[in-house]
Amino acid sequence: MELWYTEKQTDNFGITAKISKTHVTEKTDFQDLAMIETAEWGTMLVLDGMVMTTVKDEFVYHEMVAHPALNTHPNPKHVLVVGGGDGGVIREVLKHPEVEKAVLVEIDGKVIEYSKKYLPSIAGALDNPRVEVIVNDGYMHIHDHKNTYDVIMVDSTEPVGPAVSLFTQGFYKGIYDALKEDGIFVAQTDNPWFKADLIQSVNRDVKEIFPIVRVYCANIPTYPSGLWTFTMGSKKYDPLAVDETKIPEIDTKYYTPRLHKAAFALPKFVEDLTK
Amino acid sequence: MELWYTEKQTDNFGITAKISKTHVTEKTDFQDLAMIETAEWGTMLVLDGMVMTTVKDEFVYHEMVAHPALNTHPNPKHVLVVGGGDGGVIREVLKHPEVEKAVLVEIDGKVIEYSKKYLPSIAGALDNPRVEVIVNDGYMHIHDHKNTYDVIMVDSTEPVGPAVSLFTQGFYKGIYDALKEDGIFVAQTDNPWFKADLIQSVNRDVKEIFPIVRVYCANIPTYPSGLWTFTMGSKKYDPLAVDETKIPEIDTKYYTPRLHKAAFALPKFVEDLTK
Repeated sequence: MELWYTEKQTDNFGITAKISKTHVTEKTDFQDLAMIETAEWGTMLVLDGMVMTTVKDEFVYHEMVAHPALNTHPNPKHVLVVGGGDGGVIREVLKHPEVEKAVLVEIDGKVIEYSKKYLPSIAGALDNPRVEVIVNDGYMHIHDHKNTYDVIMVDSTEPVGPAVSLFTQGFYKGIYDALKEDGIFVAQTDNPWFKADLIQSVNRDVKEIFPIVRVYCANIPTYPSGLWTFTMGSKKYDPLAVDETKIPEIDTKYYTPRLHKAAFALPKFVEDLTK
Repeated sequence: MELWYTEKQTDNFGITAKISKTHVTEKTDFQDLAMIETAEWGTMLVLDGMVMTTVKDEFVYHEMVAHPALNTHPNPKHVLVVGGGDGGVIREVLKHPEVEKAVLVEIDGKVIEYSKKYLPSIAGALDNPRVEVIVNDGYMHIHDHKNTYDVIMVDSTEPVGPAVSLFTQGFYKGIYDALKEDGIFVAQTDNPWFKADLIQSVNRDVKEIFPIVRVYCANIPTYPSGLWTFTMGSKKYDPLAVDETKIPEIDTKYYTPRLHKAAFALPKFVEDLTK
C-alpha cells in the first residue's frame, strides 16, 4: 500500500508526495497541523493543507527571508520574526553576529512544540540564548512595540486562517511604527502564477507606507508554482544600493552575495505586478 | 467524474493537473505523445510521460532558451534549433530581426504535426518564410553541417528515449564544429533538485570543448522542481560581458534586459554544481 500526500495548490493543479510515516495530524486552536515523513523531501510540516516547510528544501525559504534584509541594514541588532514557529528564519538570523536579540512571535504554540520534536535541524535555533520566543498574536505584538526593531520579518501562512490580518494595510502601518527610523521589513508574498492579485495589492499597500519597496524571488519546489515572492519595505536603506563585494560570506545553500541584487531582477510578468 | 494527469517527476514526487479533454494519445515512431487540455495550464504536450510545454507557461522556457544566447552574439544570422518541434523556440528566435534563417531539426514529425493543430499560438511560427523545418536526427544534422551556424539551441527532451545522444560529449563536439568561429550554443539541462549529476556532467563535458561555459536558471512551474537550468557554451562572446543597457526591448513575458545577467547568478547549491 502506498500513501501519498496530495495538495491542491489551485482547484485544478497540485503536487503529490509519497508518505512513509505520519507523525502527527492535529487540529490546534488555530489550524490543522500535520507532520509527515515524505520519501522525497524528508519531514514535512503542513498547515491547513499547505506545505509550510520540508527538511530538504527549507533552506531556500528561510535563507531568502532572512539574508537580503539583514545584508541591507548596516547594523541590525534587534530582529522580530512574526510567525515562523518552525524556527528556520530564526536559525538564519542568528548567522549574523551583529544581531543581539531575535524575537519570535508565533500565534500557535503547537507549531513550535512539534517543530522542536520533529524538525530539530530547523527548530533547534529556538533554544539559542539570543532568541526570545513569545506565543502570541503577531498583530498585537507589533502594535504594542513602537520604535523597537531594526528588522521585522513576516513568515506567515497564506492569507487564510490565522494569517488574514497579516496581509492588511493596518498591519503594515503597525510594522512601520514598530521599526526604528531606519528599519526594514520583509514578508513572504506568495507566488505570481496563481496569486498575482495578492502580490499587486500588497505592493500597492506597502508603497503607501514605505518609501522604498522592492520585490524579489526565489525557487521553492514544494510551494505552489516553485516561484516565491518576497516584498521588502524599507525606511532608508535600499537593497539594490548594497555593495555586494562587502557582503560577508555566510554558511548558506541558496543565498550568496552574488545573488543579493540578482534576486530582485524579476521576470517581466512579475515586474509588471509591481508597477 | 474527474480526470487528472499525474506525472511522477521522481519515484516519490509529482504534479497532478485536472484534464478537461484528451485530444491525442499516440505511440509515434520515437515516443509516447499526448496532447491534453488541462484546466490550469491550457493545452499541454506530454512526451514519454513528461510535460514538454503548456500554453500558459511555455513562454518561460522558450524565451529563456532563445534570448540569452541571441543577445550575447552580436550578429546571429543563422540559427539552428535541435528538437523543439512545438515551434516555441523558433517563435522567439524570429523576434530577432538580424536572424536571416532559423532551421529546426526535429526527429519526430508527429510533434510538429500535432503542435500545429493543437498549439497554434506556439507552432504558428514554423510557417514563417525565414524558417526551414527538417524532420531528421539532430545528431546527424549537426555532424553534416560544419562551420555553418552562429547559434545552436538544443531544445530536447530529457536524456531518455530519442534524446539520449543529445547529452553526450560527442554531440557537444559536433556542435562545436557546426558553429562558426564565434558561435554560441545553449542546451536545456534539467533541474538541480533531482538531476544534479546531469548538470555536473554536462558542465564538465562542455568545459572540455568550449572556452566559455555559463549556466543560468529560470522558473518553469510545470517542470520538475520549478527550477530549470540551461548551459551555454561559447567560443568567443561571454553573456556576462554584455552591456545590458544596449539590449533592445523585445516583446516578452519572462526575459528582460535586466534579467540577462541576473539569470546567471545561481543559487549556491547550483553554483556548486558548476565548479
